[in-house]
Amino acid sequence: MNSSPDHEKAQTPPAPGRRSGRRPGTSGTRDAIAAAAREAFAGLGYDRASLRGIAQRAGVDPALVLHFFGSKQQLFASVVQLPFDPETVLPQVLAVGRGAIGESLARFVVGMLETERGRNSLTGIVRAAASEPAAARIVREMVTERIFVPLAEALGTDDAQLRASLVGSQVVGLVMARYVVAVEPLASADPATVIAAIGPTLQRYLVEPLPAVGRPS
Amino acid sequence: MNSSPDHEKAQTPPAPGRRSGRRPGTSGTRDAIAAAAREAFAGLGYDRASLRGIAQRAGVDPALVLHFFGSKQQLFASVVQLPFDPETVLPQVLAVGRGAIGESLARFVVGMLETERGRNSLTGIVRAAASEPAAARIVREMVTERIFVPLAEALGTDDAQLRASLVGSQVVGLVMARYVVAVEPLASADPATVIAAIGPTLQRYLVEPLPAVGRPS
Repeated sequence: MNSSPDHEKAQTPPAPGRRSGRRPGTSGTRDAIAAAAREAFAGLGYDRASLRGIAQRAGVDPALVLHFFGSKQQLFASVVQLPFDPETVLPQVLAVGRGAIGESLARFVVGMLETERGRNSLTGIVRAAASEPAAARIVREMVTERIFVPLAEALGTDDAQLRASLVGSQVVGLVMARYVVAVEPLASADPATVIAAIGPTLQRYLVEPLPAVGRPS
Repeated sequence: MNSSPDHEKAQTPPAPGRRSGRRPGTSGTRDAIAAAAREAFAGLGYDRASLRGIAQRAGVDPALVLHFFGSKQQLFASVVQLPFDPETVLPQVLAVGRGAIGESLARFVVGMLETERGRNSLTGIVRAAASEPAAARIVREMVTERIFVPLAEALGTDDAQLRASLVGSQVVGLVMARYVVAVEPLASADPATVIAAIGPTLQRYLVEPLPAVGRPS
């Protein structure tokens, strides 16, 4: 389903040390490794996810993981991407207008987290950001460049950067509390409850008056 | 300053392999190791903080770390504690009354994070929670049993558990965004700005009407 633009480059994988039972073609193998890696990074965190374990989940030889992705850090950067295209999504989120933007964004975020791929990607990014500088950079870029700042700027509010970082704090905190730390009842609340709970927070952070920003002098 | 109730137990440390220059007595040594461990867990995350590195920061032999604390996991559980006593703090936070409780809690949390010890403890807990189940359990207990649920219950609101987990999501998200991921301008905003920004969020989560809680059936 998610065929990679890179899969043509890797048409002759090296003969693995032992043959695996699962060899659905080069592109299928790469996709299987990517899916296994997303699961491992989301479930175990960056440091505990091992190339050997990822290979085992994917049913391939560990040498194939290195062949396709190079290193654990490159594997992380390749597979733990945003599970959506911001340029497609932002206009949809914004279509409701300023009065309902908080609920619209909450609906998008919570809905994305309800899908297995979205949940694994975002949980993997947030968990890894806690220990791996490269992942922390992905979270910063996600917040500042690709999603929340463009969203805040499209709304024409002042202090778009501060608004975006506040939205980011609530969204990252939601991922931590609902999926990583699993605090009840937030962890098992249905999506509509979560949307109704955090929507007004995002609404305020995005468009309602905020205090003047002070910086330490 | 924070003398441990356990320090009497450890009066005869084993002779270290090489003598360190810094041996300010048993209790001082234990405190120095604890401070170094808090710094390391906060700065590096649980997985990357090593006993050897912690010993080096504290200026002691690695054997002393094991002597005083047993294992890395026990060291973590011993030193990364809440940097305050909830039974003392909660009445102070609550003293302002319901109308200003969000700002009062925000002021306490942000102020705690402005101190080196508080920031290291809380950042260490949140970072470790991303990879270490024992730390995730500390965060869950912190939210559910020791701080936010008692706070929500003292306010007499319905759905204290949901309110507490929402407060926890914003507080954990603030720690991640301001200190771990370091999203600007939140990372360098002055305390008053942060308090004014998240206070109303905590106010709503704690005492304002929330949607009825739905659970997946």
